[in-house]
Amino acid sequence: MASSNPVFGNDKPLASRIAQASTRPASRAYERYVLRRVVESMGSPRFTVALWDGFSITPAQGKALATATIHNQAALMQLVRYGEIGFGDAFSSGGITVEGDLVGFLVEAFRGVAEVRGPVKLVKRLQQRKPRANTPDGSREHIHHHYDIGNDFYRLWLDAEMQYTCAYFPRKEMSLEAAQQAKMGHICRKLQLRPGDRVAEAGCGWGGLARHMALHYGAKVSSWNVSAEQVRYASDRARTEGYADQVTYVLDDYRNISGEFDAFVSVGMLEHVGQENYPTLGEVVDRCLATDGRALVHAIGRNRPRLMNAWIEKRIFPGAYPPSLREMMDILEPYRFSVLDVENLRLHYARTLQEWLARYDGAYDEVLNQFDDEFGRAWRLYLAGSQAAFLIGALQLFQVLFTRERNNALSWSRQHLYTD
Amino acid sequence: MASSNPVFGNDKPLASRIAQASTRPASRAYERYVLRRVVESMGSPRFTVALWDGFSITPAQGKALATATIHNQAALMQLVRYGEIGFGDAFSSGGITVEGDLVGFLVEAFRGVAEVRGPVKLVKRLQQRKPRANTPDGSREHIHHHYDIGNDFYRLWLDAEMQYTCAYFPRKEMSLEAAQQAKMGHICRKLQLRPGDRVAEAGCGWGGLARHMALHYGAKVSSWNVSAEQVRYASDRARTEGYADQVTYVLDDYRNISGEFDAFVSVGMLEHVGQENYPTLGEVVDRCLATDGRALVHAIGRNRPRLMNAWIEKRIFPGAYPPSLREMMDILEPYRFSVLDVENLRLHYARTLQEWLARYDGAYDEVLNQFDDEFGRAWRLYLAGSQAAFLIGALQLFQVLFTRERNNALSWSRQHLYTD
Repeated sequence: MASSNPVFGNDKPLASRIAQASTRPASRAYERYVLRRVVESMGSPRFTVALWDGFSITPAQGKALATATIHNQAALMQLVRYGEIGFGDAFSSGGITVEGDLVGFLVEAFRGVAEVRGPVKLVKRLQQRKPRANTPDGSREHIHHHYDIGNDFYRLWLDAEMQYTCAYFPRKEMSLEAAQQAKMGHICRKLQLRPGDRVAEAGCGWGGLARHMALHYGAKVSSWNVSAEQVRYASDRARTEGYADQVTYVLDDYRNISGEFDAFVSVGMLEHVGQENYPTLGEVVDRCLATDGRALVHAIGRNRPRLMNAWIEKRIFPGAYPPSLREMMDILEPYRFSVLDVENLRLHYARTLQEWLARYDGAYDEVLNQFDDEFGRAWRLYLAGSQAAFLIGALQLFQVLFTRERNNALSWSRQHLYTD
Repeated sequence: MASSNPVFGNDKPLASRIAQASTRPASRAYERYVLRRVVESMGSPRFTVALWDGFSITPAQGKALATATIHNQAALMQLVRYGEIGFGDAFSSGGITVEGDLVGFLVEAFRGVAEVRGPVKLVKRLQQRKPRANTPDGSREHIHHHYDIGNDFYRLWLDAEMQYTCAYFPRKEMSLEAAQQAKMGHICRKLQLRPGDRVAEAGCGWGGLARHMALHYGAKVSSWNVSAEQVRYASDRARTEGYADQVTYVLDDYRNISGEFDAFVSVGMLEHVGQENYPTLGEVVDRCLATDGRALVHAIGRNRPRLMNAWIEKRIFPGAYPPSLREMMDILEPYRFSVLDVENLRLHYARTLQEWLARYDGAYDEVLNQFDDEFGRAWRLYLAGSQAAFLIGALQLFQVLFTRERNNALSWSRQHLYTD
């Protein structure tokens, strides 16, 4: 049970509910039947699933990576009726707990769901839905939902530069801190930043990349963001740390970017832009990029079009949609932008999430001082589930570098990205 | 006139036709009017256009890069009525000659046509046509048209490895020979080739890449090609040079590739595959790629969908179509292939073509021993025009590396491509 995990030690309500399990009625035949069909439809997952009365289904062969326990009938019905949303909600409420390797369990579960066979197609049906539209007002609300949870919360498990996007680990064993610095350097090199370059940034998070560009490359950066908390944090740091003349954080929508810039960059915003707005994003870049300008979009993507995991879209990231590379071309093709370089950092994101989850677990007491158990478990599932999704290739991380069609002032090769 | 160019010294029929120009009737008012409208519609191109009687239109400002002379009314009408096809045919027949910087002239002309204004939209109308379909029989015929012209012809201006695709110049000043070796090495590194790896190659040209993979990487390569001349050449070399046990050249369509392979590679074939066959190509890769296999497609592309230059498609490369990156995804998305790396080598192709054209011009006497003037001029235009197209970004060169969605045995970064 989760309560046996030290980081979940103060998870009182759940622990007591679980303790009551023995006083609950034994599972019925149809409940065991339904459970068996769910597990069978996933092939031969390498985990054990148990019901509240001790009934369990174990892997046909090999050791189980984890044991998922469904603690009551309501949680079982949530899972069966609502698929991934039901699982997520039941996990968050404590109706389902996972003991053992949570990421490994989710890898097995996602793989199983992707190849779901037989009559249990409920999960698939849930994918018919559409993500919520990202109108300017809607975007602000969606972003508020996620990013204005509180800087204190993110500080518990992000690096010192508050980078809430995929890090880049040129050496596997490097620290998250170093890998986030390396990510920012990698992007600046791809953009061939030079002192004095004017940079427009769409979606700046807590301002780390703009900071890096100003301090390490002497660039003049204007960064747009609709999260008031993030803009306040970034602006405060710029003032306190003395580079406010080089960086301007603007509390506004990316659609209102104006001016001319030598580089355009957007890291981890596209997921929130919404497909219907891709041509608009392209128009923004076209409007503001100098003749010889360079542009980079860094975003979570897919190998083929598919909606975001339903539970994450509903509970964690409203309006989120990771595009396929083909779909990303809706930004570029109308303006004849020329793709110079696409790099897929999928495994780097899995590694980043592994670091975040470890820090999150390490700070779990503090999380529960700020939020309730349900929030704590939901975010744990989100971090573990995202790691699993990158590990199995359900999610990709694309960095796309592009310029105007007629820009011949390109770097001759990519060698410069790999020499100190 | 072209006859003033030493490489065109033996261009007798043209020279005598040009000599007769003074005996032709003076250009009429409507002919001069039409010419003026054509030039005006292209903005302010930096070249001079002259008619047979000496009437000319010079750039409004600056020095002309070149002078195009239209030697008779028929050539003028060809140009006006048939746009790029008319120009190409008139150039090939000698009805239009270009003195000065041919590539610079074509850069200006392509730019002008791309932004064509006013009533002269004939060129645009020509782009409504569809490329010819590539059925297996059709493909064989199209390939025969181009690649079976004769190995002796290509030997005149290609490198020793007979690489008829974009070279890779890690250092700008390196020789074509070295750059073609570097291209093959770059591809092998992207594919992470190891000794003993089984490689399937779709479209092998004269077999150079297969040779390189066998000799430098110890791979076992099977290469498919529908050009009998190329397969004969490649097989002969393999026998003579003693690596026939490592390389098999198969005279057959890529659609018939069978077996299981650790790597799939296709360099410069996609242009001839035809859009309607992209899903079939994806199916071929899916059928033959091992679980942890790597695949690379190297092809000429576009920033957005547009047909091949009409004249090249008609006279040089029947059935050719350079896809946009979005269109290339028709190969990958249905099979959930994961794009790891896209590199655009557009300027490397311009450089390659510059080398080819210089060698071609140097061997022009020999070209005319093998073929007639018209062929000689047509190929000169094709090489110069292609260089111009890459220089202005009308064509791109995409190398796309991909694997199966769940392959986690990836290279951790691209560092290995840039270290010796």
